[in-house]
Amino acid sequence: MYDLIVIGSGPAGLTASVYASRYKLSNVVVGKVLGGAITLAHKVENFPGFTSISGLELAQKMGKQVKSLGAEMIADEVKKIEKLVENFRITTQAGKQYESKALIVATGTERRELNVPGEEKYLGRGVSYCTTCDVTFFRGKTVALIGGSNAAVAGAVHAANFAKKVYIIYRRDQLRAEPMWTEEALANAKIEVIYKTNITEILGDGAKVAGVKLDRSYQNSSKLDLDGVFVEIGGVPVSSLLKTLGVKIDKNGYVDVDKWMKTNIEGLFAAGDFTDESEVLKQAITACSQGAVAAFSAFKYLTKKQGCFILAKTT
Amino acid sequence: MYDLIVIGSGPAGLTASVYASRYKLSNVVVGKVLGGAITLAHKVENFPGFTSISGLELAQKMGKQVKSLGAEMIADEVKKIEKLVENFRITTQAGKQYESKALIVATGTERRELNVPGEEKYLGRGVSYCTTCDVTFFRGKTVALIGGSNAAVAGAVHAANFAKKVYIIYRRDQLRAEPMWTEEALANAKIEVIYKTNITEILGDGAKVAGVKLDRSYQNSSKLDLDGVFVEIGGVPVSSLLKTLGVKIDKNGYVDVDKWMKTNIEGLFAAGDFTDESEVLKQAITACSQGAVAAFSAFKYLTKKQGCFILAKTT
Repeated sequence: MYDLIVIGSGPAGLTASVYASRYKLSNVVVGKVLGGAITLAHKVENFPGFTSISGLELAQKMGKQVKSLGAEMIADEVKKIEKLVENFRITTQAGKQYESKALIVATGTERRELNVPGEEKYLGRGVSYCTTCDVTFFRGKTVALIGGSNAAVAGAVHAANFAKKVYIIYRRDQLRAEPMWTEEALANAKIEVIYKTNITEILGDGAKVAGVKLDRSYQNSSKLDLDGVFVEIGGVPVSSLLKTLGVKIDKNGYVDVDKWMKTNIEGLFAAGDFTDESEVLKQAITACSQGAVAAFSAFKYLTKKQGCFILAKTT
Repeated sequence: MYDLIVIGSGPAGLTASVYASRYKLSNVVVGKVLGGAITLAHKVENFPGFTSISGLELAQKMGKQVKSLGAEMIADEVKKIEKLVENFRITTQAGKQYESKALIVATGTERRELNVPGEEKYLGRGVSYCTTCDVTFFRGKTVALIGGSNAAVAGAVHAANFAKKVYIIYRRDQLRAEPMWTEEALANAKIEVIYKTNITEILGDGAKVAGVKLDRSYQNSSKLDLDGVFVEIGGVPVSSLLKTLGVKIDKNGYVDVDKWMKTNIEGLFAAGDFTDESEVLKQAITACSQGAVAAFSAFKYLTKKQGCFILAKTT
């Protein structure tokens, strides 16, 4: 039995645990991957305090901090959340159960799929949703990044360190990444952008990716030969566990929270990229901030319930 | 002429500059003290990514990051802000003027005073508003921290490393710092808490502090002998420059912003501890998040105005 369980081990969940430990709440973080989505960023230059750091290293630093403050971390996936009379109970993939008085859920987003023929068939055989993880397998090859946001454009810059040729295929007529990434991509001789174009199929030779079919011709062909396809078209909120529990979710799947990160269920808080508050900006720093606020709200909730402390805003 | 001027060099302002630079906005940060209020924290253990760091060192890391991305930093105080037909113009203490197309103001808070006799007279002669800055002058002495929040309680823990005796004098019947700080203070044999008590006067020998007068007796005396008095009773928002400009300010002096950090004046954004959004939680991490959001909003404002980019949320 814990004061608090944090579900999700990305920046929001890890920061929530740091704050909870500072508030002396016994807590455990249960998550699939330490760092969550931030681990997919090969280079982070906008997290305050770190001039340049890999997403993985930043995640490891946060994980170390969580442990240094005495919280537990469990690498497991939560499959069920139950609201008991007083407490919450979670059940994990590994079949373990844990209970707590309050709950912070920060499960973030998972990668959006193209939903075209060939995508599933060639997954892991040329199709990838994580440029940072997989691009080193494509040394001297030709690859395409699908998308036009930061993940796609920064991914292309990273891919150009390994591949001999990198395409960015984007449905709009202008990239929408941070201008610093866009400038770097456009100045890179290995990178070529194909605008206003969608992928309609991923082609292969039966064993691995061979190319893609385009919805309009590029250089007189609607086929493009490729060895790898990196799909970087954003995320979808991971909120189905909460929906089942009766938490209010908006039509796009984002969790409805107020600015104190409260959901409609008492004692249950949400933070990070899968909340509707994140529509303003989805960044590691904004997720961390939400995690801190959620922990503060959980602390206030628990102390009020137990009547232990006189509380006011911390300064 | 800059795309953006950032006024204030605390966590909010520095993060705003980092994001602005990543968006390729030419920008300058004008502020009195690099790091602002965070420099007053002798130990920060809740900023994600840093297990334990001094506020000063964290500020220096952020400053280094700002410069590495090409922004200018000017150590000066802004005395006037003008809205011209198209642009903003600021005038500094040093008499310099700078213009920009957009403006982010992040001037934070300044320390609240007790407003009692003797306070002004003995400032710098035993009275201080910054425990971290001044406590080393009190080795082997007796000091008091006034207040009960994080700054006061963490300040007392820090002061006990130098002083022979440390009082915390607080108007309520229970400290309201993070429980980890409270626990550490209460376990420290050098620290004694005087609850439900206010200071009515700071006493001295004409040259320096000699003690304080209390509004109720403690150990049969309404006077307490002291060598130093550290006033840690929170902050007041520094918003008068904006008030003059016609920015909406609430009755407590906090700047009225929406969740995109927009003020009521087009092109003018605010971030950090002096905004009404900060009522949720005032921490370095929340200030940084607001700075990032303000920069993103300034970027959208400028690109829309100039019609340069097709924009959507960055992911």
